[in-house]
Amino acid sequence: MKITNGIYRYSFGTPEKLTPEKFIKEEPIHTVLEALSDFPSPFGVDAESITFECSDDGVILSLPMRDDENIYGFGLQMKSINHTTKKKYLRTNADPRSDTGDSHAPVPFYVSTYDGKTAYGLLVETARYTEFYCGSSRRLNKKKAESDNSAFENEAATETFYIGQRKTDMEMIIRIPAIKGVDIILFTGEDPDDVCRKYILYSGGGCMPPLYGLGVWYRMDMYFNQEEILRSARKMKEDNMPVSVIGLEPGWHTMAYSCSFKFNNNRYPDPDAMLAEMEQMGYKMNLWEHAFTHPSSPIYKKLLPYAGDFEVWNGLVPDFALPEAREIFGDYHKETLIDRGFSGFKLDECDGSDLTGSWTYPNMAKFPSGLNGEQMHSVLPQLYQKTIMEQYRKKGIRTFGEVRADFSYAAPYPFMLYSDLYGHDDFIRAIASMGFSGLLFSPEIREAASKDDLYRRILSGVFSAKLEFNIFYMKNPPWFNHVIAENNEGKPDPEVEEITAKCRELLNYRMALIPYLYTAFFDYNTEGIHPFRSARAVYPEIAATDSVEGCVLGDNILVFPLTVNQRKVKTYLPEGLWYDFFSGEAFQGGKVIEREYETNRIPVFVRAGTIIPMLTNPMLNLNTDMMEITPVAFLLEDGTAEGTLYEDDGIGYGFEKGEYNIYYLTYSDGAFSIDKDSGYEGKKAVFGSCKVIKA
Amino acid sequence: MKITNGIYRYSFGTPEKLTPEKFIKEEPIHTVLEALSDFPSPFGVDAESITFECSDDGVILSLPMRDDENIYGFGLQMKSINHTTKKKYLRTNADPRSDTGDSHAPVPFYVSTYDGKTAYGLLVETARYTEFYCGSSRRLNKKKAESDNSAFENEAATETFYIGQRKTDMEMIIRIPAIKGVDIILFTGEDPDDVCRKYILYSGGGCMPPLYGLGVWYRMDMYFNQEEILRSARKMKEDNMPVSVIGLEPGWHTMAYSCSFKFNNNRYPDPDAMLAEMEQMGYKMNLWEHAFTHPSSPIYKKLLPYAGDFEVWNGLVPDFALPEAREIFGDYHKETLIDRGFSGFKLDECDGSDLTGSWTYPNMAKFPSGLNGEQMHSVLPQLYQKTIMEQYRKKGIRTFGEVRADFSYAAPYPFMLYSDLYGHDDFIRAIASMGFSGLLFSPEIREAASKDDLYRRILSGVFSAKLEFNIFYMKNPPWFNHVIAENNEGKPDPEVEEITAKCRELLNYRMALIPYLYTAFFDYNTEGIHPFRSARAVYPEIAATDSVEGCVLGDNILVFPLTVNQRKVKTYLPEGLWYDFFSGEAFQGGKVIEREYETNRIPVFVRAGTIIPMLTNPMLNLNTDMMEITPVAFLLEDGTAEGTLYEDDGIGYGFEKGEYNIYYLTYSDGAFSIDKDSGYEGKKAVFGSCKVIKA
Repeated sequence: MKITNGIYRYSFGTPEKLTPEKFIKEEPIHTVLEALSDFPSPFGVDAESITFECSDDGVILSLPMRDDENIYGFGLQMKSINHTTKKKYLRTNADPRSDTGDSHAPVPFYVSTYDGKTAYGLLVETARYTEFYCGSSRRLNKKKAESDNSAFENEAATETFYIGQRKTDMEMIIRIPAIKGVDIILFTGEDPDDVCRKYILYSGGGCMPPLYGLGVWYRMDMYFNQEEILRSARKMKEDNMPVSVIGLEPGWHTMAYSCSFKFNNNRYPDPDAMLAEMEQMGYKMNLWEHAFTHPSSPIYKKLLPYAGDFEVWNGLVPDFALPEAREIFGDYHKETLIDRGFSGFKLDECDGSDLTGSWTYPNMAKFPSGLNGEQMHSVLPQLYQKTIMEQYRKKGIRTFGEVRADFSYAAPYPFMLYSDLYGHDDFIRAIASMGFSGLLFSPEIREAASKDDLYRRILSGVFSAKLEFNIFYMKNPPWFNHVIAENNEGKPDPEVEEITAKCRELLNYRMALIPYLYTAFFDYNTEGIHPFRSARAVYPEIAATDSVEGCVLGDNILVFPLTVNQRKVKTYLPEGLWYDFFSGEAFQGGKVIEREYETNRIPVFVRAGTIIPMLTNPMLNLNTDMMEITPVAFLLEDGTAEGTLYEDDGIGYGFEKGEYNIYYLTYSDGAFSIDKDSGYEGKKAVFGSCKVIKA
Repeated sequence: MKITNGIYRYSFGTPEKLTPEKFIKEEPIHTVLEALSDFPSPFGVDAESITFECSDDGVILSLPMRDDENIYGFGLQMKSINHTTKKKYLRTNADPRSDTGDSHAPVPFYVSTYDGKTAYGLLVETARYTEFYCGSSRRLNKKKAESDNSAFENEAATETFYIGQRKTDMEMIIRIPAIKGVDIILFTGEDPDDVCRKYILYSGGGCMPPLYGLGVWYRMDMYFNQEEILRSARKMKEDNMPVSVIGLEPGWHTMAYSCSFKFNNNRYPDPDAMLAEMEQMGYKMNLWEHAFTHPSSPIYKKLLPYAGDFEVWNGLVPDFALPEAREIFGDYHKETLIDRGFSGFKLDECDGSDLTGSWTYPNMAKFPSGLNGEQMHSVLPQLYQKTIMEQYRKKGIRTFGEVRADFSYAAPYPFMLYSDLYGHDDFIRAIASMGFSGLLFSPEIREAASKDDLYRRILSGVFSAKLEFNIFYMKNPPWFNHVIAENNEGKPDPEVEEITAKCRELLNYRMALIPYLYTAFFDYNTEGIHPFRSARAVYPEIAATDSVEGCVLGDNILVFPLTVNQRKVKTYLPEGLWYDFFSGEAFQGGKVIEREYETNRIPVFVRAGTIIPMLTNPMLNLNTDMMEITPVAFLLEDGTAEGTLYEDDGIGYGFEKGEYNIYYLTYSDGAFSIDKDSGYEGKKAVFGSCKVIKA
């Protein structure tokens, strides 16, 4: 059944009742969707070429694959990007150490491309753990095999013991246990980017973070007390290190595993005084927690009737599928924490964890809503986010937080994923593939093996959707000393000044990019354009090159994050003229280029013809100050460039009612000009003179 | 239902039809079983305290646990030994990098001990992937929680963020998807050792390897040709390195992935001549293969009607559950390889492999026998072993091989597990727990990080059920040079002579132990006493100490394998007097002792009062020579010691008809004496003078 341009829904057998769309899906943005491309279903009008089987073992769907098909997506996959010829078993699990499909965001949605560009996306509408065989298994054609007399007349070469799976006659086989039928949503488009956009708009569009949320985040030592927190926050200002959000880790609770959601007054004698001073310094504050509620929490007994039948860490598991549970939990948070001034939360531990000592409820748990443990593992993270979101919306301010897990339809949720799996290469794979599934991932910095490792990890954050330092087990910042023991002893690195200066420079780049990123997020919110798309989605031809993995930041910046071991690398540049973001050096695209990079640099290219509106002063207070903008014009051969800048009040929901401005920036004939087609008066931006980069 | 002394069978719901006992179970050894202890079921005569639930999601069994309960077993678990408070999802999977339950021998059998000693074992009679929640999840008691007003009056300490799971009110919850009922077999006993013995006897008793199988195995470079194989074998003899079996890796096939099972005559122009020279040097030869059959194999078309509906590496997957498939495959092997003189096979790749690039058939595959892919992953390894075993039995000789996977009831199968997961600590955990599930594991040596690492890895092999060098990617032995590149360039380690001498000493220890080990295997075969039991099974009190993991080799040798990083370690010695195997130093047991060990030594203790019949000459031909025995008496305080020695023809099945001798060795009043109560004439042993060790 066609839903709208390029979106189809197919129903097989007798689908189950408790599926994600009933719990965690926002309203699609129909107006934009309908304007997008209308491609036919590659499986026939009625999905004739999809085979459906049903038995006691569950449901099996088989879809033909093309020999050149590449499969991307499946949520936040840290161990591989192209899933063709692999099997993925999608289960909500923290810290997967193998390429199995386990993930804290195991979205049963994949994007397939073939013929070099054409694409479709397929979402399985289930909250159950699903297996995808992406051309990994091939059927034995007994008839053909019986009559074949020619194929192996001569002995095959024996030098190739491990021949791998031949990429012909591939099938995508999808298996879901225990059910008798299933719905799938099919998205078709001219390329992966088109398909992803449809999936995001169908999910309800991307989230719109508050302005400060795009600044630098810093979570402090979990054993710090109020005065230590404040002292460290003041020190950041003294050192001119731009930080916008300070996060508290478990230590703020009286009981953290499970959570009491009550301030520990031994450590924090006066949270309001702390908040006031933080606000005055320009910081927002974010609080760590998880949903498992300790018996000593004021809401424990109220939540009991709305809890699952198993405990986690002696705490109850609220059934957030029920409005009653969301209300008890949410109201308490609003009254005791949100109204007080805390800007958001880090929602930890909702990822289940077969791989981390069973830190979760079992799969056979039962919840009052009718969901079982397996299904709840999938939907709890977004239900939890919704519980918090609802309260901020009630208060009329936007929140931006962190969350340990996600699932289908996650784009509208203003929470970013993070991971304890700390391999930088894992993080880069996550960054380079999160866009396929409408997810946001924060490659947080905890520790580093060396100063060079520190720079490269910071760079991954600078050019991603979020730059966060999660220093919950060190007393001082990582630029003070990356060696944990020495850091905690207060012993600075011998090169502390040089390292701090280099880190500050990188943080300042992040701050400079905020206006550009904020504009990109507005496009995410309204147009479904992910602010951080895989280069494979936008430039599918990259898959045929030997380029390292890249991402498209906004529309016009191409980023290739690198680990500390990658010095000389090959990067693909699409057709046209490009500039090195840092040096301004110009490059002709349409080819792979190889260059060497210092550890405090990575390949970042700006498309010629782009004006990037950069923040002039990195140390300003994002919540109160006007934003002085330095437009930087990267000129085309003809001397022109253009850009846009979105602005609103930075925190409220007025933008949904048109309370915003979009500036159209132009550079032409040696002159910079600004055009504006909206009349929002609460403006934040003031423009300085334009800086010009040319080839 | 009581089956026999201490063995019960309980049926819940409507059990499925295709379960392991129908395919891979041998006949129990009733006579011995009936003489063992008769303990009642801890769950009531009719299993009243086991809760059974059944829904569309499958079957759930819940069993109460005691607060002090320790859970061991679940097959070959390399990431942990005690499973209490953990969840294990048992799937046949190679190379699990996390402690999830995945294993190439994921036996749904565990052994529980409580009250410090009492034990039961529980086998789930299913070939499906099963989840075990071993006290990892606790139910929320809503009534109790509602009325509880006292527990958390004061704020809890916040220093303990990660409080872990409280070990009270634990339950063992077992979940099997897709089915409507299940049978379990319950084994009760006075301690874990008693329970394991019942499980092994119920499985049909342990395997009896041929004598040569207990010697040293060496698998050679997979690209070697016939002359290179022979040259290396000759060199071993020249260097006085005792090796009994030479193994060929994939290179002997014309096509290896999938397999043709045909000799590549370019590499091996005359296999019979090779075999003849090897035989003359005293070597047996073993061939690598796997079951996935290449189209160029002579048996491909014959097997087609008896194959599953999916390919692996373009090959078919024989349905060995059908006698027709076993016969075609087995007869071909007998005619072309077994009758020719090859002594056995290494059965690779039958472990499935979600974790290694989907090197297997999918879970939804269908086989003519009615088994699906998931079930076949569990039973194929033993069906494959059976296919080969049947042919050797037909020929009247015993075989001893290797296999990449196992499941329930594996004890009678004369194949040893091995693993690509190469962490020495992983191997030690496997060694220290394999006995719980009636499995044999070979901690094979491939490469080493240093000479010290090499010694310690060899030591793990010396004192385990099999010592094997699997040098399939090096041209020279690891004692020549442990650095792979240098080894392959023919460049010896600067200390090659010292290293070779030290390795030779360790290999000679292995050879010396063969008579003792062979006797232990006879007890395994007839009495169900695993030759290599976990110290936790035999001395349950060790669980309460801080000893490193240990094993009981035969009845009287206690071994604690160590990695290269473990130099000064604590080991528990049970009550009584013990001797260091290497130095003869005496120790009083009943406590933990701490000592430092050179890298070419590990803690190995012999119980005082034991006579170990040691092989005098390590270089003899195990197949043809008489075994000269040096009895070594480790005396009790009263100057006595005793031991036994089993002997038979070393290769045939005559021992099943009583064609063997058992010698009873005694040392008393300063004199050694031998008693024998059987009259087998084809004797192999001759005795030298007794060596005495005393405190």
